[in-house]
Amino acid sequence: MTLIDIGNTNVDIFCDNKVTKISVGDFAPDTYTDDIVWYASVNRRMDELLNCYGHWMNIEQCIDRTLYYPTMGIDRIMVCEAIEHGIIVDAGSAITVDVMNSGVYQGGMISPGLYAMQRSYRSISPVLDVSFNFEVDLDKMAKNTQDAVTKGYLSPLIHYIKSFGMPIYMTGGDALMFKHFLPEAHINEMLLFEGMKKLIQKGFKC
Amino acid sequence: MTLIDIGNTNVDIFCDNKVTKISVGDFAPDTYTDDIVWYASVNRRMDELLNCYGHWMNIEQCIDRTLYYPTMGIDRIMVCEAIEHGIIVDAGSAITVDVMNSGVYQGGMISPGLYAMQRSYRSISPVLDVSFNFEVDLDKMAKNTQDAVTKGYLSPLIHYIKSFGMPIYMTGGDALMFKHFLPEAHINEMLLFEGMKKLIQKGFKC
Repeated sequence: MTLIDIGNTNVDIFCDNKVTKISVGDFAPDTYTDDIVWYASVNRRMDELLNCYGHWMNIEQCIDRTLYYPTMGIDRIMVCEAIEHGIIVDAGSAITVDVMNSGVYQGGMISPGLYAMQRSYRSISPVLDVSFNFEVDLDKMAKNTQDAVTKGYLSPLIHYIKSFGMPIYMTGGDALMFKHFLPEAHINEMLLFEGMKKLIQKGFKC
Repeated sequence: MTLIDIGNTNVDIFCDNKVTKISVGDFAPDTYTDDIVWYASVNRRMDELLNCYGHWMNIEQCIDRTLYYPTMGIDRIMVCEAIEHGIIVDAGSAITVDVMNSGVYQGGMISPGLYAMQRSYRSISPVLDVSFNFEVDLDKMAKNTQDAVTKGYLSPLIHYIKSFGMPIYMTGGDALMFKHFLPEAHINEMLLFEGMKKLIQKGFKC
């Protein structure tokens, strides 16, 4: 089974239990000869192109959108579909935090990702233009600028995620950066594809 | 008693229990005829100028810097000096959160302020370029983009500030924007000047 996640910059291809990342420019849909190729896409131009291929199936048609909210990204819905019960943190350019309770979506929130936050501190003052210290002790208040900035970003977020007392699932390109602060979290880079597989197997609305 | 807080853009003048704000360009030190004028300044150019006036006293000389940390801003130290015990939130271009325990500084953290955070969301995606909803219910997970973004910024921060279980003191230009989410907080726009007064009266190291 080939599953494809199409972004605006990159395309992730899941095949034989491994993921290959290529740029959108290198993506050639007509080279895929499977009977059916399932895809999730946030790329409108690719959506239009793939509509011309009869064997390319958009996972969008399998989603019951009434369970989520209208503007919620397909990638975010997919990681939620992968988890029955827990808090799902997708750490990319934004950090989305979503809650699933016994298979029912409870809602979520969106925080800026690591690089957006660094840009944010930089925009306030050159004094705050410091790299994050991923060794900082979040249990102590900070007594230097680097730790104060790191803590100002991470402490509230980590503390809030833990406060739910639910299993934590992390995915996304920056998931490993948070591992030190959330050692109990299950990190799974395949979460989006697991959501796709589950949805296809469930056959809901398909 | 005239107390003056000199920033890089504005100057706040405390006199007869009220505060007047003027731009740095309109600030004329030689028009102040008090025997002594105390000031706190983060403006290096003004510091040099005021050194020439014998009756202008820099509050910096009253601070025991060993109680804080070397790069900590004078404005932040002043608001800490005003409070014996509690968590002090100064909501401006950055949001500084500092803890005082029985008169001893415990450390702090720095989060981006409201406008820096809006810029941050905007830099990630036009989809996240929404204004914050200050009526959002932070006790619920969000089910629309505006609430998800507002919650992603405010919920972790508010939750973390409350988690200390200490009295909360708020100051800074955006303090009132947070009032709805921290109704128990004491809002005091004079906190910096109260810190200055306390330090002058204490006469510590002066």
